[in-house]
Amino acid sequence: MLESAMLSVTRRLLIEHGYDGMTVEAVAKAAGTGKAALYRRWPGKSELVIAAVRALQAPVVVPDTGSLRGDLLECARHYTSGHEEAALVMGALLSDATRHPELGKAAYDAIGAPPAAALAAVIRRWTDRGVIKASAPIELIGGLLPAIAFRNVVMRRTRLDVGTAETLIDGVLLPALTAGQVD
Amino acid sequence: MLESAMLSVTRRLLIEHGYDGMTVEAVAKAAGTGKAALYRRWPGKSELVIAAVRALQAPVVVPDTGSLRGDLLECARHYTSGHEEAALVMGALLSDATRHPELGKAAYDAIGAPPAAALAAVIRRWTDRGVIKASAPIELIGGLLPAIAFRNVVMRRTRLDVGTAETLIDGVLLPALTAGQVD
Repeated sequence: MLESAMLSVTRRLLIEHGYDGMTVEAVAKAAGTGKAALYRRWPGKSELVIAAVRALQAPVVVPDTGSLRGDLLECARHYTSGHEEAALVMGALLSDATRHPELGKAAYDAIGAPPAAALAAVIRRWTDRGVIKASAPIELIGGLLPAIAFRNVVMRRTRLDVGTAETLIDGVLLPALTAGQVD
Repeated sequence: MLESAMLSVTRRLLIEHGYDGMTVEAVAKAAGTGKAALYRRWPGKSELVIAAVRALQAPVVVPDTGSLRGDLLECARHYTSGHEEAALVMGALLSDATRHPELGKAAYDAIGAPPAAALAAVIRRWTDRGVIKASAPIELIGGLLPAIAFRNVVMRRTRLDVGTAETLIDGVLLPALTAGQVD
């Protein structure tokens, strides 16, 4: 049994039962292996789950399409077409994060932070180029897309849909970032 | 022992241990009463918790300050100075909502929906008065303040702070609702 398969089973049980509702024994059983094989690699449930979450982390490229709108749309693709499993794991772990802060942090670092960092980099670039007005609250605005995507994941267990992302960019982010800006 | 005291103990254990981590027996013990006294009133844990959540519901008045900005600031007060316990209960129950949808719905109906409805009413009023441009995606914009407040509650277990709410209104909501509007 490969480690990646053990971690995949771990994520499935996490999504189905939540952290408090799953056990290392159940992972071993579902993976067709013994608890010892798991404990040899990870000292406990927390380490196993954190490894399973970290395995989802993928490099995020900062888009460079030539326009602010194009870059924002490209950033939104992480939330609209990212790996569905990552969204479900994020939702499951954040559900337990209030009682297990280290799990919430691991989930955020692996899944939530990289696309948020790409979005922040895009906003910084277009601020430097003078397209985004200096008075715009860029940190807050950069957090809106993640916040809406986060609510969808936690409350509906679905990714953000493309139409909502586009409406958010055209009807909210661009006006807030550039309104009143003299070109 | 008054019902309201039993429900208050229920909320405390819910916040501390989550729905799956609490029992009717623990509520009885913490309330200094017997399980029978609880089961006489509520047939099970789910009904007890839902009653404890519904007891938090308070009437929400739609503000009417004479300006869109004033009304939005008034609406934001539900998120910045609402009962801290309501935010924590909402966070705790939404944490379990993916596994217990009926609890998430009860929490949303009692705590999340009333202030969101007041915000939507304010936005409708100022759309009818022509202050909000017809092309603004009002439903999406009306959801931003609740989404940011929701993320704070789930991820940080804190209410929205006043400064962030004001920045959101002045830097995001008002530009998105009125930018390009000819008065």
